[in-house]
Amino acid sequence: MKRNVRMVLRYDGTRYLGWARQPGKDMTIQGKIEAVLEKMTGSPVQLIGAGRTDAGVHARAQVCNAIFDTELSEEEILSHMNRYLPEDIGVVSVKFVSDRFHSRYNASGKTYRYTFWIDTAKPVFERKYVTILEKKPDTEAIRRASQFLLGEHDFKSFCTNSHMKKSTVRTVDSIRIEEKGSAIRMYFHGNGFLQNMVRVMAGTLLEAGYGRIRPEDIPLILEARDRSKAGPTAPPQGLMLMKVDY
Amino acid sequence: MKRNVRMVLRYDGTRYLGWARQPGKDMTIQGKIEAVLEKMTGSPVQLIGAGRTDAGVHARAQVCNAIFDTELSEEEILSHMNRYLPEDIGVVSVKFVSDRFHSRYNASGKTYRYTFWIDTAKPVFERKYVTILEKKPDTEAIRRASQFLLGEHDFKSFCTNSHMKKSTVRTVDSIRIEEKGSAIRMYFHGNGFLQNMVRVMAGTLLEAGYGRIRPEDIPLILEARDRSKAGPTAPPQGLMLMKVDY
Repeated sequence: MKRNVRMVLRYDGTRYLGWARQPGKDMTIQGKIEAVLEKMTGSPVQLIGAGRTDAGVHARAQVCNAIFDTELSEEEILSHMNRYLPEDIGVVSVKFVSDRFHSRYNASGKTYRYTFWIDTAKPVFERKYVTILEKKPDTEAIRRASQFLLGEHDFKSFCTNSHMKKSTVRTVDSIRIEEKGSAIRMYFHGNGFLQNMVRVMAGTLLEAGYGRIRPEDIPLILEARDRSKAGPTAPPQGLMLMKVDY
Repeated sequence: MKRNVRMVLRYDGTRYLGWARQPGKDMTIQGKIEAVLEKMTGSPVQLIGAGRTDAGVHARAQVCNAIFDTELSEEEILSHMNRYLPEDIGVVSVKFVSDRFHSRYNASGKTYRYTFWIDTAKPVFERKYVTILEKKPDTEAIRRASQFLLGEHDFKSFCTNSHMKKSTVRTVDSIRIEEKGSAIRMYFHGNGFLQNMVRVMAGTLLEAGYGRIRPEDIPLILEARDRSKAGPTAPPQGLMLMKVDY
């Protein structure tokens, strides 16, 4: 029976080239999942993901869907996938949904988390999911700077794809800065994010935390529509796709 | 200046053959730390660890000490060690202590934690620190069985070293069973543990959780003083040395 199957995934992106399948490359999240689905169904399967996470980026709750023929139940698909996927990719839930559901087009919002780590002790158990800082930034300055990113803006300065032809206007609803133990976490919620946008926002906010830019410079960076005006792209391992809203 | 240096360590044991240095083997925790200390001081250093964790076992707060000549401060040693140790071994603190301090002989108690994982979803981020179970055990039976292990007993049945010549009598003060999300955690506190004793206790308690033995069988297993009467040795990756008391 033809089904539209919606899956929630978590993965440790460390070993992977990112979400998107690439010709001739084995190590992509999409490719690994499609390969298991194809073996399961006996036919090629096209997986649609809510967000294309970059190489080295992790997900706690990526959402994807695919339409394929199957007589298996939701539970059987879940258990089959978890058995045959590598140990760093897991399926959290499987649900049969309406044919009209499209995990990318129907996504209304996403939450990303970026984690920095500051401590004289090393993040032994967290090391693959954090970015280590040498000295503590001023989190109040980070908070003040973050407020200037809220709302609808042209985020061209925060996009690493210089050939982007479509609109670079996005809305960031909330940015929350949390200090907990050795971690400084930045939670970003918005209707959608440009390529590397969260990592460039994290890198730019950190510049404010180190006093290299002032919080009030953020509006000028936005207005410039020029990638070179924003801060560096924070490394991938600190980034985690937390949630997709529908 | 000759110093007795006390260090608290955390490590991810996944890649290592265990704590204890082994001739001709590179991948031991003790060996890695001694190598960094020897480079730092220019002379061989003998490290004493509070507990000899097995291959694949982790530590959140292992304690060790070594006597060596140094002009460096505590902070400088900490920072040097963390720079030169691999990313899966970290020094949490460094303290100059009295010459009489011996991390093994002076240890008065230890806390170990064993973590089992039961979920249809896979432990993607926790996978190296948990042991996956296929079906949920009865945690009430585990709790009842655990009470029979408390107190001073001859734990020979729970020791994998059959050539053990010294006393196999130990005191287990407390065992706490905690269910949290997908994890079942067993916390063991005692004055000392025999080789693999925590893992054999965890494996035996799990047998009670699956109804393969009754909680009331534990006293008979203890009395037998025979390793074959207890349950299997639970795998190393679920075990973490949490704390050493002095």
